[in-house]
This record gives sequence, C-alpha cells and structure tokens, in this order.
Amino acid sequence: MHALNPIFLPGPTNLPEALRRACDIPTMDHRSAAFGPILASAMAGVKQVLGLSEGEVAIFPATGTGGWEAAVTNTLRPGDKVLAARHGMFSRKWIDLCQRHGLDVEIVERPWGEGVPVEAFAAALAADTGHRIRAVLVTHNETATGVTSDVAAVRAAMTAAGHPALLMVDGVSSIGSIDFRMDAWGVDLAVTGSQKGFMLPAGLAIVGIGPKALAAMETSGLPRCFFDIRDMLGGNYPYTPPVGLINGLAVSTGLLLEEGMEAVRARHHRIAEGVRRAVAAWGMTTCAARPELCSDTVTAIVTPDGVDAGRIVRHAAEAYGVAFGGGLGEVADKVFRIGHLGLMSDVMALSGIATAEMAMTDLGLPVRLGSGVAAAQEHYRNSRTAPVRAAA
Amino acid sequence: MHALNPIFLPGPTNLPEALRRACDIPTMDHRSAAFGPILASAMAGVKQVLGLSEGEVAIFPATGTGGWEAAVTNTLRPGDKVLAARHGMFSRKWIDLCQRHGLDVEIVERPWGEGVPVEAFAAALAADTGHRIRAVLVTHNETATGVTSDVAAVRAAMTAAGHPALLMVDGVSSIGSIDFRMDAWGVDLAVTGSQKGFMLPAGLAIVGIGPKALAAMETSGLPRCFFDIRDMLGGNYPYTPPVGLINGLAVSTGLLLEEGMEAVRARHHRIAEGVRRAVAAWGMTTCAARPELCSDTVTAIVTPDGVDAGRIVRHAAEAYGVAFGGGLGEVADKVFRIGHLGLMSDVMALSGIATAEMAMTDLGLPVRLGSGVAAAQEHYRNSRTAPVRAAA
Amino acid sequence: MHALNPIFLPGPTNLPEALRRACDIPTMDHRSAAFGPILASAMAGVKQVLGLSEGEVAIFPATGTGGWEAAVTNTLRPGDKVLAARHGMFSRKWIDLCQRHGLDVEIVERPWGEGVPVEAFAAALAADTGHRIRAVLVTHNETATGVTSDVAAVRAAMTAAGHPALLMVDGVSSIGSIDFRMDAWGVDLAVTGSQKGFMLPAGLAIVGIGPKALAAMETSGLPRCFFDIRDMLGGNYPYTPPVGLINGLAVSTGLLLEEGMEAVRARHHRIAEGVRRAVAAWGMTTCAARPELCSDTVTAIVTPDGVDAGRIVRHAAEAYGVAFGGGLGEVADKVFRIGHLGLMSDVMALSGIATAEMAMTDLGLPVRLGSGVAAAQEHYRNSRTAPVRAAA
Amino acid sequence: MHALNPIFLPGPTNLPEALRRACDIPTMDHRSAAFGPILASAMAGVKQVLGLSEGEVAIFPATGTGGWEAAVTNTLRPGDKVLAARHGMFSRKWIDLCQRHGLDVEIVERPWGEGVPVEAFAAALAADTGHRIRAVLVTHNETATGVTSDVAAVRAAMTAAGHPALLMVDGVSSIGSIDFRMDAWGVDLAVTGSQKGFMLPAGLAIVGIGPKALAAMETSGLPRCFFDIRDMLGGNYPYTPPVGLINGLAVSTGLLLEEGMEAVRARHHRIAEGVRRAVAAWGMTTCAARPELCSDTVTAIVTPDGVDAGRIVRHAAEAYGVAFGGGLGEVADKVFRIGHLGLMSDVMALSGIATAEMAMTDLGLPVRLGSGVAAAQEHYRNSRTAPVRAAA
Repeated sequence: MHALNPIFLPGPTNLPEALRRACDIPTMDHRSAAFGPILASAMAGVKQVLGLSEGEVAIFPATGTGGWEAAVTNTLRPGDKVLAARHGMFSRKWIDLCQRHGLDVEIVERPWGEGVPVEAFAAALAADTGHRIRAVLVTHNETATGVTSDVAAVRAAMTAAGHPALLMVDGVSSIGSIDFRMDAWGVDLAVTGSQKGFMLPAGLAIVGIGPKALAAMETSGLPRCFFDIRDMLGGNYPYTPPVGLINGLAVSTGLLLEEGMEAVRARHHRIAEGVRRAVAAWGMTTCAARPELCSDTVTAIVTPDGVDAGRIVRHAAEAYGVAFGGGLGEVADKVFRIGHLGLMSDVMALSGIATAEMAMTDLGLPVRLGSGVAAAQEHYRNSRTAPVRAAA
Repeated sequence: MHALNPIFLPGPTNLPEALRRACDIPTMDHRSAAFGPILASAMAGVKQVLGLSEGEVAIFPATGTGGWEAAVTNTLRPGDKVLAARHGMFSRKWIDLCQRHGLDVEIVERPWGEGVPVEAFAAALAADTGHRIRAVLVTHNETATGVTSDVAAVRAAMTAAGHPALLMVDGVSSIGSIDFRMDAWGVDLAVTGSQKGFMLPAGLAIVGIGPKALAAMETSGLPRCFFDIRDMLGGNYPYTPPVGLINGLAVSTGLLLEEGMEAVRARHHRIAEGVRRAVAAWGMTTCAARPELCSDTVTAIVTPDGVDAGRIVRHAAEAYGVAFGGGLGEVADKVFRIGHLGLMSDVMALSGIATAEMAMTDLGLPVRLGSGVAAAQEHYRNSRTAPVRAAA
Repeated sequence: MHALNPIFLPGPTNLPEALRRACDIPTMDHRSAAFGPILASAMAGVKQVLGLSEGEVAIFPATGTGGWEAAVTNTLRPGDKVLAARHGMFSRKWIDLCQRHGLDVEIVERPWGEGVPVEAFAAALAADTGHRIRAVLVTHNETATGVTSDVAAVRAAMTAAGHPALLMVDGVSSIGSIDFRMDAWGVDLAVTGSQKGFMLPAGLAIVGIGPKALAAMETSGLPRCFFDIRDMLGGNYPYTPPVGLINGLAVSTGLLLEEGMEAVRARHHRIAEGVRRAVAAWGMTTCAARPELCSDTVTAIVTPDGVDAGRIVRHAAEAYGVAFGGGLGEVADKVFRIGHLGLMSDVMALSGIATAEMAMTDLGLPVRLGSGVAAAQEHYRNSRTAPVRAAA
Repeated sequence: MHALNPIFLPGPTNLPEALRRACDIPTMDHRSAAFGPILASAMAGVKQVLGLSEGEVAIFPATGTGGWEAAVTNTLRPGDKVLAARHGMFSRKWIDLCQRHGLDVEIVERPWGEGVPVEAFAAALAADTGHRIRAVLVTHNETATGVTSDVAAVRAAMTAAGHPALLMVDGVSSIGSIDFRMDAWGVDLAVTGSQKGFMLPAGLAIVGIGPKALAAMETSGLPRCFFDIRDMLGGNYPYTPPVGLINGLAVSTGLLLEEGMEAVRARHHRIAEGVRRAVAAWGMTTCAARPELCSDTVTAIVTPDGVDAGRIVRHAAEAYGVAFGGGLGEVADKVFRIGHLGLMSDVMALSGIATAEMAMTDLGLPVRLGSGVAAAQEHYRNSRTAPVRAAA
C-alpha cells in the first residue's frame, strides 16, 4: 500500500513541487555566467528573509551544524569565553561544538521546556565587567522541546549591560517560518539550514553575518578551512557548490517573499495554534512550559507517565505511514513531536492530528477520536485568510 | 500558500511517485528493441488485472471514451441493436456514442442512483428471440452516482436466456480498484483508462478483448481507423505510441499485482467504508440507492434540499485547496463526490473527510466538526491490515 | 554503459527539460479554475504557431492519425470525393484512413522522393467542373522521404481553378519547425501532434480549423464521437483531458513564440543544411529528388545498392546507443533517416553525423571518417546566430 | 535556442537519469527504518568501489575539500608534519588546508604537469629517521593539469623506507573512474566527492578510512566537530543527512558495480584515449608532461603561445552552449580542459571534440575541422566493447 501522506518532522519538511524541480536540474557549469545570478538571487533572498540589510550571507554545502561551526570558528579565538543556555538537545549540541573547538562556555542550565533565561544572561553579562564573554549564543527555537526564545530580549539585556559580545543565534528551525530580524534585534550571526523554513532538502548551511561579525573576522578566528567565510565572500566558491540546492534556495526565497514574511509567519502561527488546540482537546500538555514559549514550527507533546512516546512515533509510522518526531535526549521517551514548519496546510495538519489520535487510541491512551481534529478544524475555519494553491 | 493536499476526484487520481517517474522518461525509440518488452509487460499486466487469460489487450493513446468507441466500432455493424441502461452520466454518454455511430440502442431508463437492472435486462433478452441484440452494455461503476452494478448477474441473465450477444463493460472507474473478472464473468469487451485504478495521468484507453469479441471483429465493424483494434494486435502501433504512459502502465500493473488484486480491492473497500461511515455520521445519505450499490471508488453524497452541492465543491477548492468531484447531469446540484480510487490511504482519506466537514460547516450545513472523521478513524484503526509505505 | 546521447528520430524529438517538467505535474482538477487558463494559453499559442487568426483549435488526447480522422470525419460526408497524392508512407496512410471511412479518394501516384504534384492537382481540379472533390489533402512534410511540399502552390492552384474544396494539410512533421501559415496559405484544416515541432511526448492530436472548415462542420460529418470537434469548442472537454501534456503545450508554444517563429525556422534550416552538407561530403544522396524538396526536419539518406539501410540503423543503436529512423514502406531498406526536428542544436547534430559516419564505416560503406562532420562544422560555424542556452 | 548538449567539465559530470531520479525523492524520515538500509547500501557500495575490505566509510554533507579536512583533522595532531607535493591547483589547496589547521607541511615543489615525485618522497621518507612525518599526502589525479600519479609507487617507497606515516590520497577526480585500490595500495585515508566518478550532484564528501587511520583517530585529532568521523561511525548521523544524495550514492555504486569496476575503468580509458588522439591530430599537446601521466578523467590541452585558453572556453560556451573546463592557477590562461569523467559515451565525447574544433577554428587556431573527430572516431570504432544503453 502506497500513500502520499505528509510528514510531520520538525525538519526536513515536506517539499513543494516547485522546489523539487528547482533542485533537480541538469549539470550546470558553476563557473559560467549562468550560475552567478542564481547565487546572487539566493543570497539576496536570504538577506531579505533574515531581515539583514548590511552584511553578508555565506551558503555552505553542509548542514546547520556546519553553520554553527562557521559562526564560531570565523569570529572567535582559541579559549574565548561564550555564554549559552542549555535547555534542549540543540542548545546542548552547540555548546558541545564550542567546547570541542576549545572555547570556554559559560553554561546556564535550564529545564528542558524552558526558553533562554534572559535574566540569568543579563546577570552574567553585568558580572562580566572585563568583557571576557566574546559571544552570546541563543537557540531561537529549541526543536527538541518546541520552545521559542526571545532573541530581542537577549539583545536588550546586552545593550542594557553595555556589553560588546557578539550575538549568535541558531535559527535553524525558526528562520523562514517564525519572526526573525537580524537588523532589528541586533543579531550578529544567524545560522540556519535548507531543510526547515526554506522547504528544501538538507544540504546547505546558511549563515547571515552582520557588520560587527564581519569586523570580528578580520582579527579573530579559529583554525578552519572548509568553513572559512572569507573564501566565500563576493559569491566565490573555493570548491564545487551544490548548484541545484542553491537554485532551489533562490526559488524558495522567491516563494517566501512573494507570500510576504508577515503572511508566512501568520500562516505558521495559525497552523501551530490548531495543533495546540488539538493537544488541549486531548487533555495533554506541551513540553513548552508556558503558552508564550510554544513554537510555531514544532509542537512537542508530553505523554502520560508510563507511556513511552517513542511507541507512538513508531506505531504511527508502521500502521499509518506517517512520520512524527520522536523525543530527544532528556525527553527522549517523554515527548513526541508534530512538526509543522515549512510546507504545511490546514488540510495536511488535520491529517497529522487525525493520525496522532488513531495512534494514541491504538496504544490505549485516553484520547477521544476526532476531538483534536474538531478543535483544530474550528480554529482553522475561523481564521482562514488567503486562498490555497493546491498544486504546489 | 502552497500545499501538498491530496485530491479527491473520482479520477484522475493522486499519482504515486513511482508512476510519475515511470511516465517522465527521456525520448525512447518506439521502434527499438527496448520498447517491445515494456509494451509486452504492460499488456500482460493489464490482462492479469482484468482477469483475462485468453484474448488481447489494446492500448490506445486516448481516454475511456475512445475505449468505448473502439469496443463498439470494432465488433458491431451499422444499425446493430444494443441493450443498455441509462442511470447516470457515463451510461448516458456511452449510449450517445452508440447512437452517433448509427447503432440502435434499446434503452432501459433507471433512476440515477440505481444500478443496472438485471431483471429488466433478462426480460429484454428473453423477448429478443431473434437475437437482434448484438451487444449488452454495462456501466460497471457509474462514476456520477457512485453506484456499482452486478456484471456477473447480467452475464447470468444472458446465459439463462441463451443469448449470444456480446457483453461489453465500462470498467473505467472500477478496474484496478474494484473486483473485476473478464474470464469468470464472461465479459467480452472491457474498457478503462489510465487515470483511474491504474493511477496514471489521463491519456490511455485500455481495452480488454475476449475470444468472442476477437471473433466478432473478423466479420463485423463500423468505419474506423484510429481505433481499429486489428492494427494494434501483436504489439504493433500504427502511429507513435505514448511511450512514457505505457511504461507507466507496465510499472502500475506491477505495483498492483505485487500488492495482489485481492488486497487492492480490500484496501479500497475499507477506505470507502470509512468514507461511508463519515457520511452516516454527518446524517447524510449517498446517491447510491442502497448500501449494496455503493461504490468502493467514489462516494456521491446527497446534500439537503436547497443546498447547492456545487458550492461545497467550489468552497473546498478555494478555501482549503482540496478538489472534490461535483455533481453531473441530473444530479448536478444535488450531490458532491469524494473520489477514493487509485492512490489513497487512510490518512489521505481522513484529510478529505475533515475538509468536507469544514466546508459544509462554513456553508451552514448541520454537520458536527470531527464527527465524520471520528467515525472513519474508528473504522480505519479497527480494520488495519498491511503496513503503509510512506514514500510512494 | 549509460549515455545521454541525443536521439535522431523524425519524431518523437529530444525533450527539453522545461517541457518534461511542464508535463510531469501532480494531478490537477481539470474542472477547476486553474485548468482553464492553461488550456486557453495552449490553444492561443497553437493558433499563433499555425498562423491562424480566425478559427479554432482542437486538442485531442490522441496522435496525428487521430487528427487526420478528426479533420475528415468532422467536415465531409459519406462517399465524398477527396484529392490526394501518394508519395510516401504518411500520405499513403492518410489515404487509407479516408478509404476506411468510406471516402472516394482520387489518388495521384508519385514516386517516393517527389512532393505533392501541383500541376497534376491543378489539372484534376480544373477537370472537376462539378466540384465533386470536397477536399484536397496535402502532406506538407513526408516524414518517410524527407520531402517538403509547397502548400501555398496547391492553394494557388485551387484558387486558379476557382475550386471550393477544403484544403487539409498534414503538418505533423513540419508545424513548429518549418514555415507554416494557415491564414496566408488558405489552409482550412491543419493537423499535427505533440511529439514533433512542439517537442513534447506523443499523446496529443492538434487540429487547426479555419472558418470555412467550421462552416462545413455545420452541415457535414461522418459518424464520430471521440473525435467530434463540436464537443471540444470553447475549451470544454467531453472526457478527461491529459492535463500535463496540455500544460506542456502551453509552455512549448511559449518557448517557440519567445524565440520567434522566424528564428525557429531559420534554426531548423541551418541545422538541416549542415546535415545535407555532411551527406554530400559522404558522396551520398537524399531520398528527396531535388534540393528544393529537402525537408528541414528530417533527412532521408539513400544507401548504395545492396546495402540494407536497416543495418545502419540497428548497428548505430547497438554499437553507439544512437537512434536514427529506418526506412518505411517502399524505401524500407533503401534509406535511413536523420531526424533533426524539435529540440536540436549544432552540437547534438554533429554527434549524430559523427555516429552515422562510424556506423557506415563499420559496415564497410566508403565513407571517410570526419568528412561529414567537417562539412557540417564549416556550415555551422559560419552561420551561427543566436547564443545557445545549454541547460534547456 | 535550447539544447541538450553534454558538459565537459572535469566535474561535476553529466547526470544519468537514474541518478537524478534517485536524488529527487520526497522527504523521508532519516530516523526511520527505511533510511538505514539505504545508508548501509551506499556505504557498502563505496567500500567496494574503493577496494576497501576492512575499515569504514564516512559520508559528509560537504564536498571533497571537507573530505580533506576530515582526513587530516581526525588523525593528526597540532603541529604534525606531513609530506606533500605541490604540482597543481588541488595539491596546492590541500597543502593550504593543512597549513590553516596548523600542520607543518614539507612541500616538494614540482612543475605543473608532473606527477607526485616518488623518488623525492622516497628520499624525504628515508631522511626522516625520527618519523616526524605523520602523513604522506598524494593527489591521485590532479584535476587542474590532467595528471594521474602512481599511488602504489608512493606506498612502495614508504614500505621500502619502513616508514609508519599514514598515506592519505585525494581521489576526488579519480575514484569511480580510474583504477583505485585502498587495500592493495595500502591507502589509509581516501577522499572523494559525489560529483565526479559517482555521477551525482555536488554535496557529499566521501572518506574511506582504513584500519590504521581508525587506530590513529583514537589517540590523535585536531579541533573538529562537523567533520568528526567518530560521530558518524555505525551509520549514525549527528545532524540531518542529505537523504536524496545518499540514496543517489546507493544507486550510483550499484550502477558502477553492476558494470564492473574493471569495465568502468576500461571505458574511461578508451574514451580518454580518443580525446588524446584528437589532441594529437590537432597538433597540440597535453599539460601532462608524459603520456603515462595522462589522466583518464580529464585532458588538459596546452594552447599555443599567445592564445588565451580562457577565450576558447568562453567562446565554446557562448557560441555553442558547451562547457569545457578553464585553466586554473599557474596554467590559468595556458590550458583548457575537456572533462570526460563520470557519465560519458563515445558519442558525447565526439560532440565535445567537434565543438572544441569549431571554437578553436573560430578563434584562428590552426586546427583542421574534423581532424580530431576522425582520430577519435577511428579509435572508438576499433575499440568498442559493450553495447550502449541509450536511455540512461
């Protein structure tokens, strides 16, 4: 039995037809006159999506992890101190990366389900009168827990403390779906990948670099070569670029900007809100500790005590052919995740909610069939805005 | 806003990835050694799907209507009498085709929503002691009303009457999804298209020709050239064949036979049953007059008096990006149709049911959100059989 | 060993990437608002390519043969007389089609390699003082012999004779590549398919219908249903249209018109001229009897006495993976054909010429390696015009 | 004007249809049961292509440069000494990478056009009695100059010297096309990318790791995270893998192994030999200093004094839509390159040779049209082996 079921991973996302086509092209000479405009279009599009007016964009054939590595190895020095919160799998991994590169990470521990602790950061920055902290790391959207943190507030705390550190943001699962503003929030380095808000296959690390980070690159840096941003500036590639993916990125940013970033964000918010109402209808809770922390790209749902969340994920895959995200790290068995970033419609979301209901019922959870669907339907039909293009 | 929403037309169906790839191939020389095996494989596969052991298959670059034309123009003579029931849009069209070709159609009128009237046919055949009726036409699955008729019973009536007429069956929206057996039912000519049970784009008329029909071709025939079956026998094409679609048909029959025709039919039955339970949960009725007439490939749903069914179809398309089938002919404004033939999974069906609920609620119909979904979920989860391959 | 070798069939042609993509689309509701504009665009584009200002276009899911059938069955009556020359496989087949439909064909026999005999036609028309001839049939480009005939001259002869017959033209292998003008030449019905000048897969019969033919349809017609043009007017389909191919046709006409029909024709002329110079360099001759008859879409090359042309075709396919066209009918073993219609570039043509040289040398023909290539190279480099888009 | 012209870059290569399809797939859950076998198949296939029986394969979302970085950062320590020759752009870049990571590179300078100097390496190894050299770096195929070096001879020199250094080989433009044997040649680390012999788009760095390198990883290593091989062993990905490309790699290795590595190498040798005979027929010379150095994947051709090789490349692209490789670094204006690695057939190669002839003639070089083509044709037709699959 075959199916065209959507997937509900928190990345990679469902692929729009237009982007599959944009990526699947015959071989093009990347040194030819044809490639330059494609790369320039992708870079310009990314800058707009990032809300970055001055600055540069580097697009590596890699993943978000490579983007983190590029951000830190291009702007810091061996032994530099960085400030970061550990409150989920991806903030944990970024900290680990910094440590492997010999950086001194001042870690603020937070329960998984919480966001970046702005007050603790403010305190640490205020205490750092010698400005030994060279960078503040923020995981904008913790994909593992479905928690969105307040980047602008972190910048405000840095400003209040008069602290000169760089602000580096992991926007892997937020950029292109959730509100993100490099200029307005004073983000110096923003990192994302192709397979989330840009709705492409995995394979690109995308790094937005503000003026202050560019300046830092001139005097700082850890050993690096593949991820050396200096070799990429001006649209030159020191190695063979993945032309298809970059063409896809040019088309993807075109789709996003045509819809309008405000509309894109509003769409993700209303789809996410429908999912959250379904969770409430099921009598369940999100991993995100408070409503204002709930992510608009992924909802992590806490299963009742004694219920292995992984069984729900495996059962949905085997019985219904639908992929949800499992729990990771500290919440490995305690949450399952419904990803709704990138390409997602009301109708697709409803099929995911309906599948989750069946899977949980099959496994004996006290969920009433149709209850979450009805809650989401009610929200979707009352908040409709733009018409839908069916053949995307 | 883009989406990967399924479509719920009663044909063409959602396209499996494997079949899109099979159709989208570089140009192949149709006179080369490579094409012969592809065509042979498609023909052999179609014969198996049709349940035809002796006989031939002709595959025209056309649609089901062309298949009807091939069936009648290759085996009948000008002025020949044929027996047919008129009980829906497609039986009406086939009768019209016969009349345009100068055949004398004895029409049994039946309400739309009823099936082929076996007793009336039996009576007509018994009365035709001179055997002037040369062919009996049966629309196996009336796509317009969602009604499946009993082909075997018609053959039994012919046998009981000792009548030598040919039995011609329109299986356009049944073959490949609903039980169909040329040998066992004594079907002499069976007609279908590529875009229904075979899950391909439109563009092929597929005609199964039993031994008695082959014999009739030797002495009968109306003026014809493009649809002359004689030119096609032995796998020769008198014009350029649509190589991609034929390759798709070879792969499609492979997929169906690998799953097993019994499993294919069971799958369509359980998906259809879920849709019917949703209809019942909504307090609505099918156009099919009795449960045993209900089609497993398309459900036609009667809207309450005064409610234009077309509005539901248009609203679902505009507001949610989902295509349902509208009403046709006599039931144009009175029914809307949920197609579930070809490529369809539980999860896809649920998204269609959920969308229909929203659309009807938006338009003021007294449908409770989630009610149809819950009824279908209950059926699906209790009747699961095979695991699902998500990436099809 | 795999290859991306071009094919050199006289249709179907090599497929441009853009058209493969345009054809390979997810299922679209052909009754939705989205399909109308696509069909309208395809129809309007075809009219421009045909040079037809007033009149209609009908696009059938069929092939060119179906187009012939549509042309004659929609405008003539049983027993009507038509005038046609038989000078190749495709003119022979069209005559056969007319005869199968009960038409009375006045056949002018001509050697294969000659064009339509304008003077003989003029004489026949002049002799037909009773205007019993209802249609004059012209095969614009005889694909079997590589001969292009003079349609305008036939119209001039009809005008000179004051003859009211319809002028029907088979433009299957000319339209979209060779100069063609329905209005200017007074063509009443023009027939082509998708797989030639439009560079698409096979599967569409395309019929241009001038005002006089539209008028004839009102009072004439043979039995027909699938090919009934009346059901298609206004963009309505009486059966499921092949949406992907029609979308492809819309894009194809866009590509042709963007390049400009004059430039398209000039391109085919210069590529064909290179092939002809190669033939001359090999010391061989074309099947076309005189230079002015040589087709710009296909070159049929006469092999020396005793050399089975089919061996060259089979050997090129087996040894080098390149498809040429074999001989058909009366010239079955005497000619092989290099198709250069549709998508073809200098570079692609040179690879075909080089392959033909190797294949002929392998089989002992007295061809000097590189000789034809050099002659074509010389022509191509001296007649270059527009730059080439490599990734098409 | 559009075209389906092949490209003649020394990578990325022309893409086989089968591999485009394998890469262009709907989103798959990389944590699902479906992905494991795909990755395992790709890894097992790569090991066979590499001739590696014991050891591991790491597949990074990156390019060959990332593979170099993985090789050196996983097995060496800060300040370690490595031995390398600088005789082309890519050997130069690898040395640069080592230096950026703080390694102490003992560089043997060689003219561009020469291979790795086995005797100089032998001398350096013999002199290094303290075994300070921890790794010997060999660029197996210098893509910039079209020179293939003798890896086995380097290993023999190491063995003769009783030297324990690791042997690291850049096989980016050789592996999958030219003979390569990790076990037999004692290669400890082999690096390649997806876009060369594997005939895929760029986007994968592929690293073969022998037992001795695995052992070195346990005690050595430079700061690294994204390229940390330890995180990848056992088929686990520490970040989102590019599922489509990895599926493509599984299919690619299947194609190569089905053809047989011996047959693959023989095919590249005969195609390359045809190109070299064309160069000789033009009266020109290769950048490779001696015949035995000539690469079977790329031919670098020296242009006459005063002729800017870049003009040939640009003119061929603009006038004929064909991409050749330009010169790089020290030979930037002095050579142009015909890439014939990956997907290439006789017929494709001939179209490249014919295009180069036209381009050079256009620019006034004393090349006789057809001369190179004839020389290559003669070679190809006399050395044919396997039949060709046209639709690849």
